[in-house]
Amino acid sequence: MAPQLEPFFKQVDELSNSFIDRLRKAVAIPSISAHDENRKDVFRMAHFLASELEALGAEVEQRPLGKQPGKEHLDLPPVVIARYGNDKNKRTILVYGHYDVQPALKDDGWATEPFELTIDDQGRMFGRGSTDDKGPVLGWLNVIEAHQKAGVELPVNLLCCFEGMEEYGSEGLEEFIKSESKKFFKDADAVCISDNYWLGTEKPCLTYGLRGCNYYSVSISGPAQDLHSGVFGGSTHEPMTDMVNILSKLVDPKGNILIPGIMDLVAPLTEEENSLYSKISYTMDNLHESLGSKTNIHETKERTLMARWRYPSLSIHGIEGAFSAPGAKTVIPAKVIGKFSIRTVPNMESDAVNKLVFDYIKAEFAKLNSKNTLDVWLQHDGKWWVASPKHWNFTAASKAVKQVFGVEPDMTREGGSIPVTLSFEQATGKNVLLLPMGSSTDAAHSVNEKLDKKNYIEGTKLLGAYLHYVAEEPASEV
Amino acid sequence: MAPQLEPFFKQVDELSNSFIDRLRKAVAIPSISAHDENRKDVFRMAHFLASELEALGAEVEQRPLGKQPGKEHLDLPPVVIARYGNDKNKRTILVYGHYDVQPALKDDGWATEPFELTIDDQGRMFGRGSTDDKGPVLGWLNVIEAHQKAGVELPVNLLCCFEGMEEYGSEGLEEFIKSESKKFFKDADAVCISDNYWLGTEKPCLTYGLRGCNYYSVSISGPAQDLHSGVFGGSTHEPMTDMVNILSKLVDPKGNILIPGIMDLVAPLTEEENSLYSKISYTMDNLHESLGSKTNIHETKERTLMARWRYPSLSIHGIEGAFSAPGAKTVIPAKVIGKFSIRTVPNMESDAVNKLVFDYIKAEFAKLNSKNTLDVWLQHDGKWWVASPKHWNFTAASKAVKQVFGVEPDMTREGGSIPVTLSFEQATGKNVLLLPMGSSTDAAHSVNEKLDKKNYIEGTKLLGAYLHYVAEEPASEV
Repeated sequence: MAPQLEPFFKQVDELSNSFIDRLRKAVAIPSISAHDENRKDVFRMAHFLASELEALGAEVEQRPLGKQPGKEHLDLPPVVIARYGNDKNKRTILVYGHYDVQPALKDDGWATEPFELTIDDQGRMFGRGSTDDKGPVLGWLNVIEAHQKAGVELPVNLLCCFEGMEEYGSEGLEEFIKSESKKFFKDADAVCISDNYWLGTEKPCLTYGLRGCNYYSVSISGPAQDLHSGVFGGSTHEPMTDMVNILSKLVDPKGNILIPGIMDLVAPLTEEENSLYSKISYTMDNLHESLGSKTNIHETKERTLMARWRYPSLSIHGIEGAFSAPGAKTVIPAKVIGKFSIRTVPNMESDAVNKLVFDYIKAEFAKLNSKNTLDVWLQHDGKWWVASPKHWNFTAASKAVKQVFGVEPDMTREGGSIPVTLSFEQATGKNVLLLPMGSSTDAAHSVNEKLDKKNYIEGTKLLGAYLHYVAEEPASEV
Repeated sequence: MAPQLEPFFKQVDELSNSFIDRLRKAVAIPSISAHDENRKDVFRMAHFLASELEALGAEVEQRPLGKQPGKEHLDLPPVVIARYGNDKNKRTILVYGHYDVQPALKDDGWATEPFELTIDDQGRMFGRGSTDDKGPVLGWLNVIEAHQKAGVELPVNLLCCFEGMEEYGSEGLEEFIKSESKKFFKDADAVCISDNYWLGTEKPCLTYGLRGCNYYSVSISGPAQDLHSGVFGGSTHEPMTDMVNILSKLVDPKGNILIPGIMDLVAPLTEEENSLYSKISYTMDNLHESLGSKTNIHETKERTLMARWRYPSLSIHGIEGAFSAPGAKTVIPAKVIGKFSIRTVPNMESDAVNKLVFDYIKAEFAKLNSKNTLDVWLQHDGKWWVASPKHWNFTAASKAVKQVFGVEPDMTREGGSIPVTLSFEQATGKNVLLLPMGSSTDAAHSVNEKLDKKNYIEGTKLLGAYLHYVAEEPASEV
């Protein structure tokens, strides 16, 4: 065991009720970034966080980000940045979290008041923001407090970056991180983000990869206005006929992407990587439970995890401009816009993917001999991210998991994107670790969001232990 | 010329300003059947029509239809039925029209107040309901009045059936027609409906056929709830992938229905019918103008008109349950419902069409080897209708057109459905004629709806002349 952990752990246990009180106060502030009327609460949450940090002796700033683009009557919530410790002989860890939350109404189906932390007899602490992401953010504050009260020196310098717009597109954050990378964040030796989830409920994980996303629109237009299908059906080319034809050429029912060349861009599976998946604590039953159905494409957990983490996928999201309401409408839509996206993985570069997508769709449309007009464009893209899990940032976290939970963590990737991860990596050039606190059943973004008391308290120990192992790890070769 | 027409025509010309005043009063009543708040105006319009008919000496009843299904706080507007003349030695013609209108707001883009009849220097009478269907309905009243003032006896008995819910599904009308077919309507020798439009702007038409419509829903469901495409993309069968695949198998870009057996149900084209199309006053430019594009499938007017009138067509209307808004959403929709319809023609029986559709879609879905679940069902159907254009009802109308406009009418069919046509044919067993008053540019249902003064006044003459020729025509063999 790293020195100093025992007194820290003991102090965390002793302070656990006070840590839960801290979370209770934070959950009580409905800091919903998507709702104009709650913007004052988002600011209130920033003040709460800043004053808690100040009370712990951190150097804190609330940095304004200006007006909200498209909603210029609103000020963006500040980024709360803080420094705790400034010892040149220590490593400096930059931690990220967010203090805003998703909307929540009791009427949505919550069993309890969403903005009152309610603990049941299984130790589940229900409340909006409990797991996403107030619990993990407060975890860092708890770590500082427990060290202080245990009389143990924090073994690293801590830099904090807590934002208030994560649930609404992280407006302005990327530029902020970029501009502070050589200023407030310049000493950072590595980054740690606690804003995702364990793969299951029992075993912590360290996350070292995320897929990217290229989101496309394809429009097909013909007649100048919507037409009556009785009057004109059979006499004009119909955009919807061409649209379903084009969309049907993108991916087969087994999830195979049919766009030639896409799979050639994918990094080959190495023996070493291949051997990782069987160790992961995951079962096909877990998948069925998440889906609520047995519509799995692959029969093994290994192939399923690879499909989610290390292979691209193509999903068709919907069609804009066609009839989408319940009931019947005998319309020939004049212009329809299909939406689909490709989840990208190493080594798919966005430009190369775009060219393959555009060329293929245009070639397939040409084959239709339709007099309609097609256009296809990239709506947005976000790059995939893969970090080296052999970096000291990860080995330290791995040892911390072993210490606190008694198991080796799952080394996971995720199928979705967490754009801030890439922003930090690109701006600082340092290794980024995703170190989740909550479990797969926490229902972030959903009704009855919760954080288990065990995850919060042991998770606080984990964050602290991680900092101690960080202080001890030798520099990495990777 | 049939006797008595000259004094009738002269009287119509003399009364034209008074007839326009009658239309002005009718347009001023916003009898919008779709809006709860205008229901009182729909009733007001029924009273107006009933009192005008009574003033002309007709025997009039306003028949209640009960509460509106699904909106039980509203009474359905009455059917205004009337009899004018009861001479057993005369033929009896049952005429249908509707006195309710589509919604209209100046802000929708009207150049004039929609509920103030406004006449421009080209004689275009703008106003909601002017052409659809208050002008044609008042045409019958004008015919009676002009006969009275000209001292000419009406050569037939007239039965009127004017409804107030046509623009909102004709709630309750079919049952009413059925129940009155052996009562109030029992003497009818033929039916005349004036509620459609000329093919162009110069030449009247008689319409003897309509396509039917079988409207289908096909649902595909998989996961229990919508999923995040990043997290689950690649690991589950996606309903949208299967949906675009199935929809792409229904019809090709040239409008050919791909469901085996459907075209075998279509009545073959006879030499006689084939020869009719070239005479029709219609050009490809007319089609391009209607479409606002040059996306025609066929290169000739003959083939185009056949495609609209006598061949089936299949249109894909849209998908319920998928992402349909502007912007981007990275969702895997859990359940999607595709909507499409087939326009039916002789001799396609609904049951036979349904069986072919259901069997084919289920077979195509089975080929996908998807673990998702498919269902397909008929949302509603309406039968096609074709009348004999050699019946005395049509030959009388044809002679009347020749008399009033100096041309042979176009003998047309329509691609859309007018369900009341079939209701009258089936309930009375008599020949039904569609005898439009307005022209193709009247913009029914759209902004700036209008009826040309010429169409209204000469159209009134046409309705009257039709009744005189009806009285003279020998019984038909068909």
